[in-house]
Amino acid sequence: MSEQLGTQAVSTQAVGRLLRPASIVIVGASPTPGALGASVLANLERNGYGGQIHLVNPKRSEIGGRPCLASVDDLPEGVDVAVLAIPQAGVLETVRALARRKVGAAVIFSAGFAEAGAQGLAQQREIARIAAAAGMVVEGPNCLGAINYQDRIPLTFIDTELGAGKPATSCQQAGIAFLSQSGAMMAVVARTLADRALPLSFAVSTGNEAASIIEDYIEYALEDPATRVLAIFAEQFRDPQRLLAAADRARALGKLLVLLHPGKSSAARESAATHTGAMAGDYQVMRAKVERAGVVIAETLEELGDIAEIALRSELLPARTLAVVGESGAFKALSLDLCEELGLELPVVRDADSPALRAALPPFVALSNPLDLTAQGLVDPDLYRRTLAALLGDERFSAVVIGVIQRDAIEVKMPPILQALREHPVRKPVIVAGLDEGAVVPQRFIDELRALGTPYFPTTERVLRALRRLSALSERDFSKVEANQAAPDLSAVAGVVPEYRSKQLLAKIGVPFPAGRMAKTLEEAVAIARELGYPVALKAQSADLSHKSDAGGVVLGLDSADSLAAGWNRLAANIARHRPGLVLDGVLVEAMGKRGLELIVGARNDPQWGAVVLVGFGGVTAEITRDAILLPPDLPPASIIRELDRLKGSPLLHGYRGSPALDVQALAQVVSRLGLLVQQSPRIREIDLNPVVLHPRGEGVVALDALMLLDDGAP
Amino acid sequence: MSEQLGTQAVSTQAVGRLLRPASIVIVGASPTPGALGASVLANLERNGYGGQIHLVNPKRSEIGGRPCLASVDDLPEGVDVAVLAIPQAGVLETVRALARRKVGAAVIFSAGFAEAGAQGLAQQREIARIAAAAGMVVEGPNCLGAINYQDRIPLTFIDTELGAGKPATSCQQAGIAFLSQSGAMMAVVARTLADRALPLSFAVSTGNEAASIIEDYIEYALEDPATRVLAIFAEQFRDPQRLLAAADRARALGKLLVLLHPGKSSAARESAATHTGAMAGDYQVMRAKVERAGVVIAETLEELGDIAEIALRSELLPARTLAVVGESGAFKALSLDLCEELGLELPVVRDADSPALRAALPPFVALSNPLDLTAQGLVDPDLYRRTLAALLGDERFSAVVIGVIQRDAIEVKMPPILQALREHPVRKPVIVAGLDEGAVVPQRFIDELRALGTPYFPTTERVLRALRRLSALSERDFSKVEANQAAPDLSAVAGVVPEYRSKQLLAKIGVPFPAGRMAKTLEEAVAIARELGYPVALKAQSADLSHKSDAGGVVLGLDSADSLAAGWNRLAANIARHRPGLVLDGVLVEAMGKRGLELIVGARNDPQWGAVVLVGFGGVTAEITRDAILLPPDLPPASIIRELDRLKGSPLLHGYRGSPALDVQALAQVVSRLGLLVQQSPRIREIDLNPVVLHPRGEGVVALDALMLLDDGAP
Repeated sequence: MSEQLGTQAVSTQAVGRLLRPASIVIVGASPTPGALGASVLANLERNGYGGQIHLVNPKRSEIGGRPCLASVDDLPEGVDVAVLAIPQAGVLETVRALARRKVGAAVIFSAGFAEAGAQGLAQQREIARIAAAAGMVVEGPNCLGAINYQDRIPLTFIDTELGAGKPATSCQQAGIAFLSQSGAMMAVVARTLADRALPLSFAVSTGNEAASIIEDYIEYALEDPATRVLAIFAEQFRDPQRLLAAADRARALGKLLVLLHPGKSSAARESAATHTGAMAGDYQVMRAKVERAGVVIAETLEELGDIAEIALRSELLPARTLAVVGESGAFKALSLDLCEELGLELPVVRDADSPALRAALPPFVALSNPLDLTAQGLVDPDLYRRTLAALLGDERFSAVVIGVIQRDAIEVKMPPILQALREHPVRKPVIVAGLDEGAVVPQRFIDELRALGTPYFPTTERVLRALRRLSALSERDFSKVEANQAAPDLSAVAGVVPEYRSKQLLAKIGVPFPAGRMAKTLEEAVAIARELGYPVALKAQSADLSHKSDAGGVVLGLDSADSLAAGWNRLAANIARHRPGLVLDGVLVEAMGKRGLELIVGARNDPQWGAVVLVGFGGVTAEITRDAILLPPDLPPASIIRELDRLKGSPLLHGYRGSPALDVQALAQVVSRLGLLVQQSPRIREIDLNPVVLHPRGEGVVALDALMLLDDGAP
Repeated sequence: MSEQLGTQAVSTQAVGRLLRPASIVIVGASPTPGALGASVLANLERNGYGGQIHLVNPKRSEIGGRPCLASVDDLPEGVDVAVLAIPQAGVLETVRALARRKVGAAVIFSAGFAEAGAQGLAQQREIARIAAAAGMVVEGPNCLGAINYQDRIPLTFIDTELGAGKPATSCQQAGIAFLSQSGAMMAVVARTLADRALPLSFAVSTGNEAASIIEDYIEYALEDPATRVLAIFAEQFRDPQRLLAAADRARALGKLLVLLHPGKSSAARESAATHTGAMAGDYQVMRAKVERAGVVIAETLEELGDIAEIALRSELLPARTLAVVGESGAFKALSLDLCEELGLELPVVRDADSPALRAALPPFVALSNPLDLTAQGLVDPDLYRRTLAALLGDERFSAVVIGVIQRDAIEVKMPPILQALREHPVRKPVIVAGLDEGAVVPQRFIDELRALGTPYFPTTERVLRALRRLSALSERDFSKVEANQAAPDLSAVAGVVPEYRSKQLLAKIGVPFPAGRMAKTLEEAVAIARELGYPVALKAQSADLSHKSDAGGVVLGLDSADSLAAGWNRLAANIARHRPGLVLDGVLVEAMGKRGLELIVGARNDPQWGAVVLVGFGGVTAEITRDAILLPPDLPPASIIRELDRLKGSPLLHGYRGSPALDVQALAQVVSRLGLLVQQSPRIREIDLNPVVLHPRGEGVVALDALMLLDDGAP
């Protein structure tokens, strides 16, 4: 990560000086409308900023009646925040001067730093150095500033008019903090959210993150009582461990992190210039780790806002079980398709098990989920109230989605819906949505829905997509296995550890391997084979021979002493031909077990994100279709087994077409032990078990090959 | 298909009497506001219907100054259309009376027919019978009527106010016909489209389709000069062959069919109560056939409208190559992710190969696609004009998408965009979209964009999703292979055809099988094996033994006369044990070939949709992940080869990880021949070749097993 510049955590107090400043200096203040400095001042004045405002402009003695200082050096000591509305060329010198005047924080709009080449990068590093020495928070450079909505303090040049307070929802007063590396995204999303009457606490754009990183602001917003949901746009986390700790803290506080993070595609990752691993790219590791910590991933801007809105307005989060209500059979069919695609569940409702719902409906409306109310609501509007009341109290549904055709008599339909919500206050998500996108719905209905804690969405499709993301959270196991297994002593190994040594080490934590021993001579091999029983395999061993199969260093299926001798000679000849001069540590003689389903299990310490485990199907087809999942290292085995069902080929594990169910318990044990080991041992870069042969339930698994890669340095 | 009631094609002239009536009778006319009959009349009067209006109501002599007839029997002969605004109980008698008065068409709103049980179904069948005998078009029952936008004739009870003409686009006058089985969808979509200022020709809801089916209206709209795009919502086609013919005709006319068809999910299919096949459900067969005919599939309501809008406003359809322009790096990264997910291509632009674009941009804006204009347009608005002008003329891009932050100075950004469009009229799709959804954009800009043939979308994401659907069309091969191969004589076979007979028949069209012959005795088997060369396989043959492997009827790898004899006896014993009394036709003795990649090739005549071919990977993993594609039977082999790349495992075909590229040419020949055969021979229900072993390029394919299933009836 070339841009990992200054990631030293700043104190939340320091961030507080930026976001809640008692005094502000605008460096580059200007009387010219449209100039950055003028816009910043206008924003502060328009929103009634009550703190002290200093202006710096060497060419003016006053601007709009406010006195101007000629230089930063003329400032009193200890101003909370400086907004630098000046060209790139003057930024570095100004930051130096601000540090001298003990200014708490600087907002740098100007671009032309790390993103612009070597000189800009050097300047940015110097800013980071100054900031670290002075304990100064630096927002940017190359950012759009920040907005404190609670105290109505805009530190940005974008025209900002903060109303005297957005309508808060009935469930809670706290709002959304939107934290973005991208300035454009801050401008876009913060205003989109505000347009939805969602209360905002802060919006921050971190830009190049010269000194202060998005993790700093996340930590601050987490502790802010006015923030309940943190919506985050990031392309790169410079301190992943702090992000993960913040996510853990968020769960403890009952707050939610929602993250939009480009980088699924190779092109976007290249664009972010990070890349590791083959089957599991950085994005997937990031995702596995943050989801483990309770972060909800959004994949589009639309989803980011939609998820944040439902999470903020509803007291409880949804699980996968929904009730969906609509007004046509066609909508029902479309919803069935979409719910199946999204993995959402629509519990079946029958007359016998749903007396309350049955009683709410006329006889000719059949019970089903999605429920088709038909156009009956037009002549019997109370139908909406009765139906909704029945569903709100029904614990089979963790959320209720009501789709209405808005262009037909919305004035008739909304009052009974609102009445049901007033009469039956609920904690689970209830969302009212349009079946006919783009219709104009009277604002008073939308306002009242929101006041009752009910989001209003333009389409049910968007509701279902957002609920899918949120519901995944309800199925996550946040418990962690204690890493109390005795880790093997790794002090004697470094770099590539050959198979036999890897197996010796991993056997100590209980990874099952075929019985086998090292032989230096054919005579030893014959003796070992006699002990193990035929058939056996021979495998050449050397730290310098990481692709032993390619060099002819593996001979399988030797079923007698004669064939063992022939195999031994063949192996020796292969090695001599492919790798002349290579001296083997020896040859591993192993018993050959019965065949089974082949999987791959790997574990590694990602340089940024830490320990992670991979489980996937073996074979080229699975490799091509990337049928593998990444798991956190400390997931309990029972949850590992559940997660295995995310593999496309998972039916193979459970006894497909008459074959026996396989020993996923034993597999989960191996996965768990490997995960804990890499977590305990940061020197381990990577472990690969390939293949791991899975046998029927009760008969265990066997890892046929093992490879470890460790850091070279001292243990 | 239980509801395949009356699918006799009605003449387009008859449909014309419904949609362009010179005289209308409202049966069940009413003076009570809100009553169905009153709403229908109000709609006609409000929109200035100029033809003759008759009213029937036995209890009234006049309504609103218009005379009322006591009975349908009092009507003059030959009224064009009757709208039945009456309860279900009176419908059947009224239809009879209408037929007697030679009324051309009937619109039946009332529900309670086929969807409501046996009695309703019987009544619906009687309506169908009457309609067929009288040549009457019947819309419904259980529908919401139809609207003719061109002549401003609403035949519906939904409040309808047809403006004096929507603004037409600059490229063409013709509009969209929206044809829907669902009444609710007609109400929703037609109004959504109209709100987007899209010119509409007709909206029709076909309901239960007692007598007239959606295919009738499609055929009518196709020939209508005011219709260029047909947007269709259907859950079931009652006459698929007519639909496919209409799609062919549409291509000939340069018109487009866009179809939203629920049924991807098992639940939605169950809800539509149709089900066939295991690996290929009806939805997939439908999709393969309609896409082959040039229909564009939408998967959501949103997509249906979005696709229709781009197709209508743009003169040309897009291919997969796009230029995308935005105003931030974050948007660029998000677009890269989405385009990769959707399979859209963003041709790379470099300074060297893009002088026009380079000249349009300031030096500090790097060339890339998506292009990030940064916020520079705020100070240099002409940047939008220059950039767009450069992209419009660039043939590397089949479409251009411009995303703008709307809340920032849209008044500054739009004029240069509009200027570029005025100065460089283009035929390819150019779409302007918001990066910040939900912003209010002045209507005059949107109107002018549309007048210039440029759709305006709320988000770029929706643009990209719609372009993906449309671009698929540009890659389809619509040519058809002539079925001039000599079909084998199938007159002697029926039902399940055993392997050896299937192989004999299919060998005649050039499907390669292992060399082999039938043996009745071990002596014959030995003679055949000597001729073929060892090793050989033995396979028991009988039409009554369709699962011969399960009965121990297959013995492989016999490498000598001795093992052949042992195998023969083992096979005989197995059959005697598993199927006592079964007399075999004989035992197929076949040469064993070398191994290779195993595929499945199948072909069948779907009862509704006709001939279709399936190609997929063999083995349980591929079966679980459903790695198979459906192809039309008459696709040229070169296109079959291209389509094979849709298989997830397709890298295996092209020499994955050092293995040789495989003989996809030979595979395509087998697929093509099988397809043409089932197309030529409607008696064939199904052919399965499983496995088909694929060898390296130039070495061909071999089908190891073959099974045919034919209709039992006379040839």
